[in-house]
Amino acid sequence: MLKPLGDRLVIELVEQEEKTASGIVLPDSAKEKPQEGKVVAAGSGRVTDNGERVALEVKEGDNIIFSKYSGTEVKYEGKEYLVLRESDVLAVIG
Amino acid sequence: MLKPLGDRLVIELVEQEEKTASGIVLPDSAKEKPQEGKVVAAGSGRVTDNGERVALEVKEGDNIIFSKYSGTEVKYEGKEYLVLRESDVLAVIG
Amino acid sequence: MLKPLGDRLVIELVEQEEKTASGIVLPDSAKEKPQEGKVVAAGSGRVTDNGERVALEVKEGDNIIFSKYSGTEVKYEGKEYLVLRESDVLAVIG
Amino acid sequence: MLKPLGDRLVIELVEQEEKTASGIVLPDSAKEKPQEGKVVAAGSGRVTDNGERVALEVKEGDNIIFSKYSGTEVKYEGKEYLVLRESDVLAVIG
Amino acid sequence: MLKPLGDRLVIELVEQEEKTASGIVLPDSAKEKPQEGKVVAAGSGRVTDNGERVALEVKEGDNIIFSKYSGTEVKYEGKEYLVLRESDVLAVIG
Amino acid sequence: MLKPLGDRLVIELVEQEEKTASGIVLPDSAKEKPQEGKVVAAGSGRVTDNGERVALEVKEGDNIIFSKYSGTEVKYEGKEYLVLRESDVLAVIG
Amino acid sequence: MLKPLGDRLVIELVEQEEKTASGIVLPDSAKEKPQEGKVVAAGSGRVTDNGERVALEVKEGDNIIFSKYSGTEVKYEGKEYLVLRESDVLAVIG
Repeated sequence: MLKPLGDRLVIELVEQEEKTASGIVLPDSAKEKPQEGKVVAAGSGRVTDNGERVALEVKEGDNIIFSKYSGTEVKYEGKEYLVLRESDVLAVIG
Repeated sequence: MLKPLGDRLVIELVEQEEKTASGIVLPDSAKEKPQEGKVVAAGSGRVTDNGERVALEVKEGDNIIFSKYSGTEVKYEGKEYLVLRESDVLAVIG
Repeated sequence: MLKPLGDRLVIELVEQEEKTASGIVLPDSAKEKPQEGKVVAAGSGRVTDNGERVALEVKEGDNIIFSKYSGTEVKYEGKEYLVLRESDVLAVIG
Repeated sequence: MLKPLGDRLVIELVEQEEKTASGIVLPDSAKEKPQEGKVVAAGSGRVTDNGERVALEVKEGDNIIFSKYSGTEVKYEGKEYLVLRESDVLAVIG
Repeated sequence: MLKPLGDRLVIELVEQEEKTASGIVLPDSAKEKPQEGKVVAAGSGRVTDNGERVALEVKEGDNIIFSKYSGTEVKYEGKEYLVLRESDVLAVIG
Repeated sequence: MLKPLGDRLVIELVEQEEKTASGIVLPDSAKEKPQEGKVVAAGSGRVTDNGERVALEVKEGDNIIFSKYSGTEVKYEGKEYLVLRESDVLAVIG
Repeated sequence: MLKPLGDRLVIELVEQEEKTASGIVLPDSAKEKPQEGKVVAAGSGRVTDNGERVALEVKEGDNIIFSKYSGTEVKYEGKEYLVLRESDVLAVIG
């Protein structure tokens, strides 16, 4: 299992068609393309300059939209994941 | 439904003519063109370095003017939206 | 009506001659040209990292001098305005 | 009258000869040339991230040395002034 | 023994095959390649602007994934290590 | 007299030979050359984001080593001085 | 004697062979080469934005590894030293 640190999330990518089941269609021309993913693990939150840990708004199981070029791809036990920061998440689908 | 995080807003673009119903006309020559939109969803606010969450000034239903090149376009259930940060909002029309 | 957010101001530009009624003359050669304007609407102030809102020093009706290339032009109900941040205001004329 | 905001100062430039009355001589070769001026108006101080206003050290009537390329020139009622931030002041002559 | 300062970690690199024992496979094409390592020493944590020390989430013995180009290589008593900051750690394998 | 503001210092340059009386020799090849100087006036300290003034560690009369390209040269009553920030001081000779 | 300010350290360089007595071998190919040194003087610590002084973790007599291109070289009484910030120290050898 991958446990992300701080304000990081481990994301399972959702395959994207022209029009997905949930209705998200991403324009090809957009410079910063959004993508859909599912949160499989969430960090314990970032620590402010005040020394307090701020819990994440996103939680395991959430479907999210994020900017395409954010995060780092990793493979773990044969599956591809993306590790990104919560600040790269645009919106939760719900 | 799209639920934006932190200080982000989901905006429905308002079609713009030479002179819109609400009277906004945007100059073509302006480098950073403002645009009109309607807020369809607002985040829970940004968290300061002090660990406090600051509620957004903008709320669902507000008509706003924002800078053209800010935000990220997403399509959801066949409609186009823009996800942007409250700091990219220039003014509320009211 | 345009209601600016945070530390933003909506400014009505004051036409500038060689020497204006209020006595301001702006040098053509200055790289960052100052301009005169009248505040028609002021935001509720910026929020510090401490979570406190700091009231603006500038208020509706003030005549101000600001740097030319700051802010964003918008037209609203046939009139031109400038939306800028209080930090772009050089001085209040009074 | 020009009333500067925050940590800004309105400065009246002091004409500079090879050697001024107060004894300041500024080298031509210096990349960032210092200049002498007199403070004619001072802002109410900057507001820290903590929300507290810090009073300025410089006050009306002070003769100061500042870096040449800082600030913005404005003309008001036929006289030239410079608006600059207190952080651009190198030293007070006293 | 190497004792890292603040939020730094001393990492022992884990040799990477096409598919490692723990199942991590790193794509060659990825711009910012992740790597696997084992924490052999951890600092006492970073000090916030508030003057408080924030303990690290990562501890000695943890297997971690980090971005390839982060950190500095050092050799000590014939073995190679990497010194990196906790913020460069993407996830803990556990 | 020159009174520096905040965390600034007014420095009298110490002439440098191959080997000075105090034993400092500065390498010509060093990219950022250190220099020796004597503090003739010190500011009242910088103000933190918390609104507190932090007293300077350096005091009038101290001999210091600083980086060559920091600060601004000024002439006052026929003598050359350097105005620099305490953060540009490398060490006090004592 | 050289007394460094704030979070600075005065370092005596340790001559480096292919393999040193303490076992450190530094790779030639490493872009940011680490080096070994001995702390001969340590500052009183940096002051946070909160106005509190944070004591250094490194102390006089410590052997440290630091990044090669950090710091400034100075000669004092015929010996070469390096003045660097504690944040440039990678690890303490102990």
